[in-house]
Amino acid sequence: MTNLMTNLIRNALIGLIACSGTAHAETDVQSAPNGITLPEGYKNWEVIGSSHREDNKTLRVILGNDVAIKAARAGETNPWPDGSILGKLVWKDAVHPKWEKATVPGEFVHAEFMIKQGNKYRDTGGWGFARWKGLDQKPYGEDASFVQECFSCHTPVKDNDYVFTHPSPMP
Amino acid sequence: MTNLMTNLIRNALIGLIACSGTAHAETDVQSAPNGITLPEGYKNWEVIGSSHREDNKTLRVILGNDVAIKAARAGETNPWPDGSILGKLVWKDAVHPKWEKATVPGEFVHAEFMIKQGNKYRDTGGWGFARWKGLDQKPYGEDASFVQECFSCHTPVKDNDYVFTHPSPMP
Repeated sequence: MTNLMTNLIRNALIGLIACSGTAHAETDVQSAPNGITLPEGYKNWEVIGSSHREDNKTLRVILGNDVAIKAARAGETNPWPDGSILGKLVWKDAVHPKWEKATVPGEFVHAEFMIKQGNKYRDTGGWGFARWKGLDQKPYGEDASFVQECFSCHTPVKDNDYVFTHPSPMP
Repeated sequence: MTNLMTNLIRNALIGLIACSGTAHAETDVQSAPNGITLPEGYKNWEVIGSSHREDNKTLRVILGNDVAIKAARAGETNPWPDGSILGKLVWKDAVHPKWEKATVPGEFVHAEFMIKQGNKYRDTGGWGFARWKGLDQKPYGEDASFVQECFSCHTPVKDNDYVFTHPSPMP
């Protein structure tokens, strides 16, 4: 098949997906400065874990793509296999209007991702990092060097394949 | 060694010892005293919300079946449509071994569910309630009257279709 035909078919499919009612289709979102694109369908992923950061007062839910979920459920996460993508959704703390001792998600802060490709990202522990801020999903970072912030913060957990999240126990 | 690490290692060993594939298939699990069966595949469901109960020191993730997720993403949750199932996974608080200000899931407490069938469950606001405790999924309750505990706790949010969870904002 010629490149032209391939491109026409690909663009038609993208058009179909974009028109299917998804308010913010991932294909509409700008790439991160390091070239990483927003992982498609991440909101549909299964849960790996959650956390409450008492220091910066945010609630987090950690999701995984199919490769990551399979590894998490099998306990094979050190190291995570190539192709794993971990997605973390972050919200500011809010108080539940009907339960004052319940901290619940308020304003959406960002969605951030770790993508495992050991060779491609060998300079950053085998992981690609990217983040999109706010409901309108603006990519984080002035230029590709933003990943050094992410990587330096994750370096203390080098012995856990650079990942803070331990999959939460489930039946 | 911290409680979190001990629990993680213990749970990993339990996972290894259990049969390959699904260690605890939902079909193997005993029904609740009111006849409700453990919803199949609930761990694969998408996220609706999360919370941190500061009073009883538990972290929670709220998932939904496809009917519930469709309603949540569309903002049509008061009332939730018949066929919605909300599933809440609950863990005891633990401290992250490498980030002392991060509260993370420790021991798994229970999975509990609200099932919307307006006619069938009209005596309890249109919702069936059920809970399974621990990794070995023991149904909660001496007899079918346990639902009165659930329902009376949820009655203060009658104006929100008896549901505390507000779907977390997402792009």
